[in-house]
Amino acid sequence: MSYRVVKGEDFSHLLERDVAFLLCIGNTRTAEIQGITVAGESPELIKFTPPADAELLYYGHCKSIPFPPATPDGKPTPALITYTALRLLGTPLFVVDSGLMVKPKIPYYSINAPVGNNIAEGKAMELEAAVEAFEYAKILGREFSKRFEVLMIGESIPAGTTTAGAVLKAMGVEAKVSSSMPENPVEVKRQVIEKAVSRINSSDPLEILAEVGDPVLLAVTGIALGSRKPVILAGGTQMAAASQVIRAIDEAKEIHIATTVYVAEDSTADIAEIAATDVIASDPGLGESVKPGLRAYAEGFVKEGVGAGGATLLAYKNGFTKEMFLKEIEKDYEIIVEQAKK
Amino acid sequence: MSYRVVKGEDFSHLLERDVAFLLCIGNTRTAEIQGITVAGESPELIKFTPPADAELLYYGHCKSIPFPPATPDGKPTPALITYTALRLLGTPLFVVDSGLMVKPKIPYYSINAPVGNNIAEGKAMELEAAVEAFEYAKILGREFSKRFEVLMIGESIPAGTTTAGAVLKAMGVEAKVSSSMPENPVEVKRQVIEKAVSRINSSDPLEILAEVGDPVLLAVTGIALGSRKPVILAGGTQMAAASQVIRAIDEAKEIHIATTVYVAEDSTADIAEIAATDVIASDPGLGESVKPGLRAYAEGFVKEGVGAGGATLLAYKNGFTKEMFLKEIEKDYEIIVEQAKK
Repeated sequence: MSYRVVKGEDFSHLLERDVAFLLCIGNTRTAEIQGITVAGESPELIKFTPPADAELLYYGHCKSIPFPPATPDGKPTPALITYTALRLLGTPLFVVDSGLMVKPKIPYYSINAPVGNNIAEGKAMELEAAVEAFEYAKILGREFSKRFEVLMIGESIPAGTTTAGAVLKAMGVEAKVSSSMPENPVEVKRQVIEKAVSRINSSDPLEILAEVGDPVLLAVTGIALGSRKPVILAGGTQMAAASQVIRAIDEAKEIHIATTVYVAEDSTADIAEIAATDVIASDPGLGESVKPGLRAYAEGFVKEGVGAGGATLLAYKNGFTKEMFLKEIEKDYEIIVEQAKK
Repeated sequence: MSYRVVKGEDFSHLLERDVAFLLCIGNTRTAEIQGITVAGESPELIKFTPPADAELLYYGHCKSIPFPPATPDGKPTPALITYTALRLLGTPLFVVDSGLMVKPKIPYYSINAPVGNNIAEGKAMELEAAVEAFEYAKILGREFSKRFEVLMIGESIPAGTTTAGAVLKAMGVEAKVSSSMPENPVEVKRQVIEKAVSRINSSDPLEILAEVGDPVLLAVTGIALGSRKPVILAGGTQMAAASQVIRAIDEAKEIHIATTVYVAEDSTADIAEIAATDVIASDPGLGESVKPGLRAYAEGFVKEGVGAGGATLLAYKNGFTKEMFLKEIEKDYEIIVEQAKK
């Protein structure tokens, strides 16, 4: 089976319509807490992961760093999967600077989003700046939805599952959270989340985002709320948090979540429980890959990110079988990862 | 007659398709030469005109300055006309920062374009920076054209007719150039253009743009060259210059120019001669307006800008008569200009 409905309705027919893929990339200084994320080969490289992911999608290689983003032990970025899907389908891609430390070497949308502060230490963003970026994101969502029939939104932000966990908790959703590591550093994350959420004294979703969230969550929720067409949140825990925020602001908004089976099967997370809407999990079939770097996904590494689960579903709903899609991913992997390392 | 073919073929049927309106806004320090432009109520305000034009289109009012851009004697920005058309038609609008001094208070695309230098004093842009922005603009054009059937590109850059005149001359097209003033300051412009073009020793269009052009011309030509669908350049002299640059790089590119009758009837300019492609001039009917500020357009002031001619044609090809459109412009004028001044 190439994908399955984990929760709610099957919305996958939406992906046969005109889809725009919007990638929200940003940083939170929460990623600087030791051991909290492996979204980068070293602490110094973590901040380059979001721009490098976006560059990979446009060029098939990165410009801000010499190699594609990877974990310290060499597991490659899920942008690879998204790249293959967008390449095969010719889906238009638009990148939104959602609080970046380093600007990507591509054209990108600015919504004047601030970099997120470390939520263990203080508020993520000034409320005023957050509200401004949120309003701009809404305009973006509105303009894109004037012609596109569906907006798919992906994300790249190291330590984003921690800030998402804090937002969920602050909104009353007790959640275990997913991670790009098989040994989910639950205890480190839990402590950061506790500390951040202890500062919360509001039930206003935007105030919660500004206090314990991150600028990517702000962009994603803003775009979704501005859209007049269905929105597919492509991601795991972070998109579950986004769905809760969106629902709290607009109960009637048509949103869905598309993620990978690696998130859906993660016993340390619980996507179906924490999502405020339908969830479909798709299987890029990496467990059957001949490439160890790709097989690692099925062994609990990386799991999701850069909209990989949604992009996979997009491929399956537009003529590609699991076998065909995996072959194409492997072909791209050879060029992007293996040949680049030579 | 609401519009007429000034040169070449009638391409207006294209405007019945899915159109995206892309507005390229930027600055050149050439605008700091005394008397060269009236695109601002005072020298200090000129640099705010492009962001304020873009804000007007999204909000129906400006945010960076308290009132809509105007000439020193109070003739309002042509963004008013474009605003009315986009409002009536629901056309999606995307704004591109094409070398701005002041960022607009809206979401906008960044192509990392530099502010243009005064071409009387030295090169407009470093070639390397120009090439980078040009490549990013091409990516934008490509992505938008994946879904939209037609890209309409407008501009806002004070003193843009002077830099356009220099580009035309450097490419061997001898041109009188239009202006937002009825007494076109031909002599000042001519001297600036002579001085700038005397530095040219290349026939490469990008080198010419970098030496004597401006970042808006760079963005417009890049987007057009990246597009896989027909492109309508909405403007006067500046879009004629863009058409020459585009043709010099790609002879087969499908481009057209839509402008206003005020440009087409300007005896100090010669749009048909300098354009490298079809030209249609549309008449927003402002000569019959009850508002003196709008009638001024028909008396030789402002004439064109912010894609007003193209936006007018868009309205005429999508169900609006000249009379209906003028009424709507006047209605917006009352709210945006008259009520704002109270």
